Amino acid sequence: MLHRSQTAFLKRLFPGDQLALAPAETHPARVDASRRTGGPAWAVVRPRTTEEVSELLGWAQAEGVPVTPRARGTGVAAGGIPGPEGGVVLSTLYMDRVLEISETDFVARVQPGVVTGKLQADLESRRLFYPPDPASVGVSTIGGNIATCAGGMRALKYGVTRDHVLGLEAVLPGGEVIRAGSRCHKDVCGLDLTRLLVGSEGSLAVITEAVLKLLPLPEASASLLAGFEDLERALAGAGAVFRAGLLPSALEFMDSGVLGALEKARAKSGGEVPWPKGTGACLLFKLDGSRVAVGAEIERLREALADSTPTFVKLGTDQEGEEALWDLRRMISPAMHLIAPNKSNDDVAVPRGRVAEAVARYKAIGRERGVGVYCFGHLGDGNIHVDIMYDESDPAQAEAAPQAKKEILRASVEMGGTLTGEHGVGQVKTPYLGMQLGPAERGLMARVKAAFDPSGILNPGKAL
Amino acid sequence: MLHRSQTAFLKRLFPGDQLALAPAETHPARVDASRRTGGPAWAVVRPRTTEEVSELLGWAQAEGVPVTPRARGTGVAAGGIPGPEGGVVLSTLYMDRVLEISETDFVARVQPGVVTGKLQADLESRRLFYPPDPASVGVSTIGGNIATCAGGMRALKYGVTRDHVLGLEAVLPGGEVIRAGSRCHKDVCGLDLTRLLVGSEGSLAVITEAVLKLLPLPEASASLLAGFEDLERALAGAGAVFRAGLLPSALEFMDSGVLGALEKARAKSGGEVPWPKGTGACLLFKLDGSRVAVGAEIERLREALADSTPTFVKLGTDQEGEEALWDLRRMISPAMHLIAPNKSNDDVAVPRGRVAEAVARYKAIGRERGVGVYCFGHLGDGNIHVDIMYDESDPAQAEAAPQAKKEILRASVEMGGTLTGEHGVGQVKTPYLGMQLGPAERGLMARVKAAFDPSGILNPGKAL
Repeated sequence: MLHRSQTAFLKRLFPGDQLALAPAETHPARVDASRRTGGPAWAVVRPRTTEEVSELLGWAQAEGVPVTPRARGTGVAAGGIPGPEGGVVLSTLYMDRVLEISETDFVARVQPGVVTGKLQADLESRRLFYPPDPASVGVSTIGGNIATCAGGMRALKYGVTRDHVLGLEAVLPGGEVIRAGSRCHKDVCGLDLTRLLVGSEGSLAVITEAVLKLLPLPEASASLLAGFEDLERALAGAGAVFRAGLLPSALEFMDSGVLGALEKARAKSGGEVPWPKGTGACLLFKLDGSRVAVGAEIERLREALADSTPTFVKLGTDQEGEEALWDLRRMISPAMHLIAPNKSNDDVAVPRGRVAEAVARYKAIGRERGVGVYCFGHLGDGNIHVDIMYDESDPAQAEAAPQAKKEILRASVEMGGTLTGEHGVGQVKTPYLGMQLGPAERGLMARVKAAFDPSGILNPGKAL
Repeated sequence: MLHRSQTAFLKRLFPGDQLALAPAETHPARVDASRRTGGPAWAVVRPRTTEEVSELLGWAQAEGVPVTPRARGTGVAAGGIPGPEGGVVLSTLYMDRVLEISETDFVARVQPGVVTGKLQADLESRRLFYPPDPASVGVSTIGGNIATCAGGMRALKYGVTRDHVLGLEAVLPGGEVIRAGSRCHKDVCGLDLTRLLVGSEGSLAVITEAVLKLLPLPEASASLLAGFEDLERALAGAGAVFRAGLLPSALEFMDSGVLGALEKARAKSGGEVPWPKGTGACLLFKLDGSRVAVGAEIERLREALADSTPTFVKLGTDQEGEEALWDLRRMISPAMHLIAPNKSNDDVAVPRGRVAEAVARYKAIGRERGVGVYCFGHLGDGNIHVDIMYDESDPAQAEAAPQAKKEILRASVEMGGTLTGEHGVGQVKTPYLGMQLGPAERGLMARVKAAFDPSGILNPGKAL
């Protein structure tokens, strides 16, 4: 709760619709795509400038008021909603300007509230390319993507958000403005504060400006969907592709359960799936590059897969054909709800060679606990999206689902994996952090946090 | 100077040739490729295990003994030699084992003293690829490359060392062992300690093990050397290549002065250079990928350059042909000594579009100060190697060279550039850090350093 003088301060700093105080107006800032409800949002402020952010954070530190930075609320780890104790939510939505696109420096300079997909469309019209493509790309923002180090489909070839941030302006709790990195494509001057801020989930500083690294837009792309008898055979096929020296921009997999959900979804809308009965797993590849290269490589990809005897292969060589294949990938999330009413999803990652083992272990956990476990995701990165499908109204399943979740996380870490490949820790994964990080690592992270935020006012209880 | 009891401790911990104490034996650890001589090396220790590093750092913190980590001494920023106050040098040369190469996980797990080029050769025989290729790759180590976030020719397409480190084991001052990251290709669990350690120049922790990300080895490559009337035209050609959607793995440039030095060097050995008289700048491209792709793209590259009317084009499509072109690039450093006896070199970077402006400014500074300024380097990254050539025995030039260096650094920062693109800060650039980093950034870096190294014993006076 804010005192009257604190409210007066916020009213002065954030006139008009830059401030929301009424619970009906602030409530949306308590929820995000994690479907959790956070503690009370005492106020939602919408700064327009770095100076306003600075003044807010100076005040917040002096007053001991917790501040949670937030953009579009697409995060699934509850990192952008207040902790149980409540606090002020700093929305970046009014800082949404593309400040500059430089075709000669190959950089874009943007405010944190810019929607990533919108920026990408602007860039593509100039034949420039910002590769990171989390599934939320049409609604999520650069600031949110940086805060979580968002991944996406194209990470296999192009890396994740971290690999495309050259410089940042950020405001520390207390109000100090820092500039990390630069607009140079190479810069090793001092400690790498830029990448320390990427993925810090708003726990260290509030990002107010980002300089992004751009690439020339690839001339062409093509996609290929291939089915296999089982996941082992699919993985052998993927291995052969890598051994042929090919580096697809994306390589997704779907297990038999996911294929079943897609069959149901298609049947419901009177449509069909492209794979024959008995297909136990699919791989979906995307290649990009110059037109000639893509044409040649898609043939080499088919050859590389041949030894794994695919049950079918479907090619998309124009935009329409490619989209038809990727529509199947995008249908997975809604289709899963045809299996069971409730979903608990994770984005664990394991070492790339252990995906088959991991999927088998996760499914065994599901069988043992009596809940459905479905796996798909970024095969090339070992980043597996695990959906536990269950019925919350069945007390046995309601109890089993969180147990299964915990066992899946523990199994991932046992295999040398991680609790989160791209979604982040937020509040959702903090109870499990001890599975992966020891006291030495957690102690060090706490000291680094204190170097930025000595009073612990910035997004407390998240990320570390 | 070490006390008798301190020496006794080191003798116990590091038996036989793991310890050097005699000045004649420790002196080599006071020099590196910066050609500076550091303070006294009180002892050189060569641990074989993480436990030995841990015990050393526990003792060093308790005793307040400065420790400088060092590998092969190829650094040019004096980061691997003791500061003026002296200290113990921790050599990683006995920690030189490749612990594991996993063809299924696409990772290599190595100790810090492994020579990067040797690892790359091992990997290539398995059709795997670790891209970072600093010029020192044949002698420098993975640990040193990580400590400096080494770049190299292939950074344009593949990024720098930072982009290829998945996980680290490191020892904190005090002896605590931490594990950052994992062997997953994606991992966002907690703060990104991995990338904070990359480029920290041994100022935060001693790296004892690294997990590197590998790629499939590209099937083929080709190189192309093209000459132009002047640098502006060369840069226009490079811009056309990017606009054609091509992403070369390397793109180097050489200015007219560098071409002159190479002409002299070739003439001396009775050989010739491939460019015609009057060529004012050269670009050297490398493309890699599948065989068909490279063949097609090299043709598109030639077409893209045509509008900039190259004075000549020379193609290397097999290993011998490519090496002949890259030999010219590698000859630059020795050839420069035919121009003048002394060299002061920098590795500034500027925003990519300002390379021509930067080179013109650097040369103007040289003319004004009466010293030669020669530019070459990684055009695609805006990372310019600037050689100031002068005669130390001429008092006017001896005074002018450091002045010119300072002005070149200042001009780089004024253009939005950086003091160092890939060599690091070490001791060489610390006097100039204030040009690029403000008090807020430097204060924050000092607090982050203290979170790792509260007593300030690890490589003091370097990096930040």
